[in-house]
Amino acid sequence: MPFQPTDYQPYDFANRRHIGPSPEEMAEMLAAIGVDSLDTLIDQTIPADFRQQTPLDWAPMAEGEMLVKMRKVARRNQVLHSLIGQGYYGTVTPPAIQRNILENPAWYTAYTPYQPEIAQGRLEALLNFQTMIADLTGLEIANASLLDEGTAAAEAMAMAQRASKSKAAAFFVDANCHPQTIAVVETRAHPLGIEVIVAPVDELDASAVFGALFQYPGTDGVLRDFTPEMEALHANKAIGIVAADLLALLLLKEPGAMGADIAVGSAQRFGVPMGYGGPHAAYMACLDTYKRAMPGRIVGVSVDARGNKAYRLSLATREQHIRREKATSNVCTAQALLAVMASFYAVFHGPRGLRAIAERVHIMAARLAEGLRDAGFDVAPEGIFDTITVDVGPLQGAILRSARAEGVNLRKFGDTKIGISVDETCVPDTIERVWRAFGINDSFGEPTRVALPEELLRESDYLTHPIFHLNRAEAEMMRYMRRLADRDLALDRAMIPLGSCTMKLNAAVEMMPITWPEFGQIHPFVPDDQAEGYAEMLTDLSAKLCEITGYDAMSMQPNSGAQGEYAGLLTIAAYHRSRGEARDICLIPKSAHGTNPASASMAGMKVVVVKSAENGDIDLEDFRAKAEAAGDKLAACMITYPSTHGVFEDTVRDVCAITHEHGGQVYLDGANLNAMVGLSRPGDLGSDVSHLNLHKTFCIPHGGGGPGMGPIGVKAHLEPFLPGHPVTGGREGPVSAAPYGSASILPISWAYVQLMGGEGITQATKVAILSANYIAARLSGAYDVLFKGKGGRVAHECILDTRPFAETGVQVDDIAKRLMDSGFHAPTMSWPVAGTLMVEPTESETKAELDRFIDAMLSIRAEIGAIEAGEIAYEQSPLHFAPHTVEDLIADWERAYPREQGCFPPGSFRVDKYWPPVGRVDNAFGDRNLVCTCPPVESYEDAAE
Amino acid sequence: MPFQPTDYQPYDFANRRHIGPSPEEMAEMLAAIGVDSLDTLIDQTIPADFRQQTPLDWAPMAEGEMLVKMRKVARRNQVLHSLIGQGYYGTVTPPAIQRNILENPAWYTAYTPYQPEIAQGRLEALLNFQTMIADLTGLEIANASLLDEGTAAAEAMAMAQRASKSKAAAFFVDANCHPQTIAVVETRAHPLGIEVIVAPVDELDASAVFGALFQYPGTDGVLRDFTPEMEALHANKAIGIVAADLLALLLLKEPGAMGADIAVGSAQRFGVPMGYGGPHAAYMACLDTYKRAMPGRIVGVSVDARGNKAYRLSLATREQHIRREKATSNVCTAQALLAVMASFYAVFHGPRGLRAIAERVHIMAARLAEGLRDAGFDVAPEGIFDTITVDVGPLQGAILRSARAEGVNLRKFGDTKIGISVDETCVPDTIERVWRAFGINDSFGEPTRVALPEELLRESDYLTHPIFHLNRAEAEMMRYMRRLADRDLALDRAMIPLGSCTMKLNAAVEMMPITWPEFGQIHPFVPDDQAEGYAEMLTDLSAKLCEITGYDAMSMQPNSGAQGEYAGLLTIAAYHRSRGEARDICLIPKSAHGTNPASASMAGMKVVVVKSAENGDIDLEDFRAKAEAAGDKLAACMITYPSTHGVFEDTVRDVCAITHEHGGQVYLDGANLNAMVGLSRPGDLGSDVSHLNLHKTFCIPHGGGGPGMGPIGVKAHLEPFLPGHPVTGGREGPVSAAPYGSASILPISWAYVQLMGGEGITQATKVAILSANYIAARLSGAYDVLFKGKGGRVAHECILDTRPFAETGVQVDDIAKRLMDSGFHAPTMSWPVAGTLMVEPTESETKAELDRFIDAMLSIRAEIGAIEAGEIAYEQSPLHFAPHTVEDLIADWERAYPREQGCFPPGSFRVDKYWPPVGRVDNAFGDRNLVCTCPPVESYEDAAE
Repeated sequence: MPFQPTDYQPYDFANRRHIGPSPEEMAEMLAAIGVDSLDTLIDQTIPADFRQQTPLDWAPMAEGEMLVKMRKVARRNQVLHSLIGQGYYGTVTPPAIQRNILENPAWYTAYTPYQPEIAQGRLEALLNFQTMIADLTGLEIANASLLDEGTAAAEAMAMAQRASKSKAAAFFVDANCHPQTIAVVETRAHPLGIEVIVAPVDELDASAVFGALFQYPGTDGVLRDFTPEMEALHANKAIGIVAADLLALLLLKEPGAMGADIAVGSAQRFGVPMGYGGPHAAYMACLDTYKRAMPGRIVGVSVDARGNKAYRLSLATREQHIRREKATSNVCTAQALLAVMASFYAVFHGPRGLRAIAERVHIMAARLAEGLRDAGFDVAPEGIFDTITVDVGPLQGAILRSARAEGVNLRKFGDTKIGISVDETCVPDTIERVWRAFGINDSFGEPTRVALPEELLRESDYLTHPIFHLNRAEAEMMRYMRRLADRDLALDRAMIPLGSCTMKLNAAVEMMPITWPEFGQIHPFVPDDQAEGYAEMLTDLSAKLCEITGYDAMSMQPNSGAQGEYAGLLTIAAYHRSRGEARDICLIPKSAHGTNPASASMAGMKVVVVKSAENGDIDLEDFRAKAEAAGDKLAACMITYPSTHGVFEDTVRDVCAITHEHGGQVYLDGANLNAMVGLSRPGDLGSDVSHLNLHKTFCIPHGGGGPGMGPIGVKAHLEPFLPGHPVTGGREGPVSAAPYGSASILPISWAYVQLMGGEGITQATKVAILSANYIAARLSGAYDVLFKGKGGRVAHECILDTRPFAETGVQVDDIAKRLMDSGFHAPTMSWPVAGTLMVEPTESETKAELDRFIDAMLSIRAEIGAIEAGEIAYEQSPLHFAPHTVEDLIADWERAYPREQGCFPPGSFRVDKYWPPVGRVDNAFGDRNLVCTCPPVESYEDAAE
Repeated sequence: MPFQPTDYQPYDFANRRHIGPSPEEMAEMLAAIGVDSLDTLIDQTIPADFRQQTPLDWAPMAEGEMLVKMRKVARRNQVLHSLIGQGYYGTVTPPAIQRNILENPAWYTAYTPYQPEIAQGRLEALLNFQTMIADLTGLEIANASLLDEGTAAAEAMAMAQRASKSKAAAFFVDANCHPQTIAVVETRAHPLGIEVIVAPVDELDASAVFGALFQYPGTDGVLRDFTPEMEALHANKAIGIVAADLLALLLLKEPGAMGADIAVGSAQRFGVPMGYGGPHAAYMACLDTYKRAMPGRIVGVSVDARGNKAYRLSLATREQHIRREKATSNVCTAQALLAVMASFYAVFHGPRGLRAIAERVHIMAARLAEGLRDAGFDVAPEGIFDTITVDVGPLQGAILRSARAEGVNLRKFGDTKIGISVDETCVPDTIERVWRAFGINDSFGEPTRVALPEELLRESDYLTHPIFHLNRAEAEMMRYMRRLADRDLALDRAMIPLGSCTMKLNAAVEMMPITWPEFGQIHPFVPDDQAEGYAEMLTDLSAKLCEITGYDAMSMQPNSGAQGEYAGLLTIAAYHRSRGEARDICLIPKSAHGTNPASASMAGMKVVVVKSAENGDIDLEDFRAKAEAAGDKLAACMITYPSTHGVFEDTVRDVCAITHEHGGQVYLDGANLNAMVGLSRPGDLGSDVSHLNLHKTFCIPHGGGGPGMGPIGVKAHLEPFLPGHPVTGGREGPVSAAPYGSASILPISWAYVQLMGGEGITQATKVAILSANYIAARLSGAYDVLFKGKGGRVAHECILDTRPFAETGVQVDDIAKRLMDSGFHAPTMSWPVAGTLMVEPTESETKAELDRFIDAMLSIRAEIGAIEAGEIAYEQSPLHFAPHTVEDLIADWERAYPREQGCFPPGSFRVDKYWPPVGRVDNAFGDRNLVCTCPPVESYEDAAE
């Protein structure tokens, strides 16, 4: 038998690891659809003249090869100890949290907890976060995180405007806020017509503003009690906001005690690495009065069908859902994974441990200041928490360099000052290094000095709930994390076929670099020569994304998709402004994602809604008419391609042409880019800007509701108007606190594109389309598939109509809950069309998993059929009682169907079945009895009674 | 309110993370026991004159600090590409396996799967391993791993001696075996009186030996068909063994096809990093005929109480359990975690992928050889798989140095040759570097040459079972790993109170360094200057262990506890030999762990059993009498302290004195060292040697049945006789294949001792004793606590008597299974006393977890009481039906007790309950119908019928 080597590539990441169906399975899927080849299917799906001409052509890499390269790039980042402060601090991530949360797919692959029955674990962790924030700020209610401190401050301003009864149009910003916060607030204020007054606190004229923002401690370290300012504001019906450092609040008077209405800030230093700027969880808390004006998601407590305690997202406050074009917030993605980490950091340390950490930090800062003063330096202020400012006159440059030689980064503060913020990772040696940078050879000794201002000492208690008083043994902590993880259904157990959310594989290898210290321990404002690894990555990733999209430039600043939309529209607005044109009308199809009109509104544009045709497409005639009507006011149109109905509309070029004809710019929403990569480029179709959801198409995991990344690509003429950054230099105002948004998760997307290669990433797109069409084909007959392109094909997702079942009593919710019994997360419900399910399988699922889902859906259809046939009443059916829990089995079984049918419907695993920890959650009860912090222990029992 | 910093240490690893009970909880526990302080309890437990005088005094470290230090040490290891071969090869660990197995506590904290109902996940993974080994070697049955290739070869020799019908006393070893294999075999042979003939294969005289070992490929790369030798051996009733490389077997004729009876080897290159020598899984396979002679553990298939398929350990073949002092193997710990990794590597790649990897390796090796030959080098052999040898005469040193300058390590082979083994991680650039080291500037080009010997091409199929033909998408693989993990109950969900196994916390931070490339990618035979990080660790860890034990020197070579015993006794034997004394009697108490007599027997000693007194202590009179009787034949005694009965016997000094009086040496088994650290030192009590179970006392996780590490400490007079190593230089024969055993897991123990500090590690010991006494106190009354010391206290574990329940029908097994319903792994059953449970809680468990266990045990006692009271028959009781599964709930409930009582006994979590995936496993069925490879898919259905 002569030896004949095979041509099988064992390290082919694209086809062996990332793409689910094997070649044999693809053949079966094509047969089920009834096409002869994948290319034929793609030809039928995407109109020929919309296809890109040049294939993507970079070479793929094997996993091991990629890791070796990534290590080389990582080593180009220099890890110094950054005492720059300004909102970013060194912190110790407890290793058990790193391993069991951040590096654990059960946590990082989870989706946003919209289906509460299968999200009880992360809902509990987020409720812990809210409780922690409410306690530390001394306010009544907190949300489950925002994107960063800068945008949280901007959201607070917008919220103040909504909630305030003042008639004033100006907003006051303490000049002692972090510069990036001021800049982000100004960016946000301008299109909303809000005048921002940046001035020292003493210059506040409370009668002239609807709200005011103060920083605590100030960016220079100054501590001030804002009680008088709050009183003045309240006297003028204005709202007071404090951007507060959480660690400082452990020792110092909290915003609530000063009379603040809202508090914002970052939870970064609660165990989340700096990561060159992000991602971290920002927080927002407010008085109960204002809860309905609060942006973002809020976790609340309710009960399930048996009356047992169950968590859920409460108050559908997401602005864009309710107010769309009138919205003043487009917040969608949060920073759930990072909020979870921060909450576990608090659970790990407890109030006593946290306080001790704050004390350590303070005492070291006080000793640092003392040493500098003893040597004759001009150190301010007197009363501090962790930050001091030293006026060194002409020595600034020399001392900063000298500090770097000691392995320490200090802050360049103005032209003569140096800022220093002590953090949790500082040890006496760190302080001695700083001293040496100032030419002082002192030894740390036994510090005794305390420099907290007496009058600002905190008097109230915090973190009194038992959850923060667990035994802190790692055995117990590890088990608590495991129990919570086990309650949730994430991608590590089953497909999550969410339309428009592209829940594809987040490969282990892609996740590995992000917890290397060379990526994690970099402050966003380090000198460029310490971040050359980041620069190399940003350059290459941007180039590849440009090649994929057909754009000429990328901005990596927006740290969510909605932020990308907003940044893109601001870029368009700036472009028009630069040409002296006063354009402010934005055409948006009716079917657009709610963030679209909200973003347009925030960018200062007037939204004109364009009708949809019968088939869900844009109504081209209506579009033309409205563009004409807008005339020289037309700023932009926002379209989604393929459409939110999952169709490659063949009118896209016309829409672009009409827009351009009238002088407008085209914003093409990149949420559905997973259907285009390698096949069609927005930039070639006539679009001028798109955002890319790196957490959808480019493998950043959803993290249970964030982090995300929403960079924007633009054509060359728009490049000069991309968001800049005040700290690192730049042009128009920033949209995020950090220059490159959530930079430390970019290695995930960069790894992905490198591993796949141009050919692999294109094949992924084709298979994503194949999988969606396979599901559509297999389910058609049982369900109506609502929208198809001219070729009779759907794109990468398909919409199933459940409205025909209404007369049986079965709602789309029942189907979603019944899918849980089969071990699935439901598809997207009732969007873009009410009463439908939008299914997006992605390329990463195997045919076996698709079939398991199809079996579950067909079985559900049969159960609906039984109701239709009068064999069982809806109220007695498994659909009504879904999801089924162990509690149902433990109780006497008095159902009209057998236990087997209820608990093990087709698709369900037997030995390995996932059991939802609670039955169907009662949303109405939760909204009537709103509880958004950990309920007292007794109430856990009450609920069960 | 003046500010008063607290003295709370938030980074105190010992007291906040590792030690479970908080100070408040300890006070409650002491109150329950009825002592006033922890120190009083310790005084009552350990006789005063056995306490150590000097406290352990090194400083503790915080987690972050330790990681920084460990990174510095790691960087002192230089990662070159090692092509040294000789049994260790570069390999790519699939990142998903690294993350989801090796770094996942659900896998690494599991115990050996003696309780099959809660170990179905890893039993399946190990069955996959066995199937893979049986397939690749072409033999009928394989075990679930051995320690390393060298010891596997030695085990095979011993097994051949047991199984062969030949009368010969000699064993043949192919001179072309790896040198460390030959050395380990010789070490093992000598005390057993086996003559080892090391010679070229052609010199085999089959009539003179009971067995023969061949290497395939030979250590120099030579490939040879051993069929003629097998025939000759069989004709002489001798047994043929092949040490085969698994990767080679993918292309080449398998040992089974040559007629081999046994095959051994290493599964290292199936995705397990070299790690400076270990741990890796060695394998052993044999013909069915010999299965009852096979050492180690074998997983088999059986059914549960409902007739569903269930895995379990079959054939209690562990020599030491059956034959004790007549044993010729003491194998106990296996390399389960590494075997699991290797099995997943095969599942990930499947036969086609594995074959392609083997082909890549071969073709690169062939091209390498071609290039060298073209340049005029003397390359051997002609037909190769991956290894070549080049005779370079006097140039050897220069070329080896030149290769290192190219970043490549080659093998120094004799004085004139260079060995090169190509591995999976080689790319064309690697080959070109090697060429450059030889002064060749060639380019790799497109390789076409194949150099496999035609006559040795493999003809049989392998890995045909569906498990090796899963879709290889990572989504699917990740979910398979998760499903298996979820079936098992490990330390990440509950305490595992195993007596003598010390299942303490394996902290996340301790596990982190072991997957850094600087520890993983080091070949065991690199030059010393590339392993300075390892050297620093070995030196410091050894010093700390010496300080803890009171010994003067440590050997890190033994890679399991049993290996440590064996190495210690060999050291004693060599010492006596050096003094010209012919001592060979070893006194061992009746209650000793089965490995003790087995080890003594393997070390060539005659075991004399010493009686136990009523209270479980050593019968001192009997000991004295037998020592006197042995006289100048007395080689050693082996004692365990505290005793296997969990008592600090106050006779230990007497035993040592009597032994020394008669010229013997004392071996003190270190299995119970967790009760001594910081309080009492074996070396101070008169002992001469101990082994330390680093996987018990020093936090290396059990990995579901390995890896372990069993270094030995000795007094100065024995140091010259510690095991050496033939490759790195040394004295007496090695006991392990690698000089420092499983070196790459030593960072775990090193991290532990550094984090804890001397005081912390001492406190851990005290709390371990406190926890055991707390359980004993709380359960006394309900259960008889069998053995206590003079002060009325147990040591770190306590033995509960279940024999009084015999008349109710309740066996110790019923209690073990019923504990599963409460979410616990059972304590050690029936050892050291049949019909008892030995409970060791360790210091890492919180009081809440201890109480949960106590609640479960008290509830079980109440259920036994109900039988005693005649309220329920044993056959109808929950004890009889335990463990309860979801299948019980799905079926109609026709039990004499309610579902609630059955499924949610006290101790059980409600929402977070762990459900055993199968009911009680039928051991008898499994032994009657032995299946030790993955059963055909149909049979899965059969079993369920």
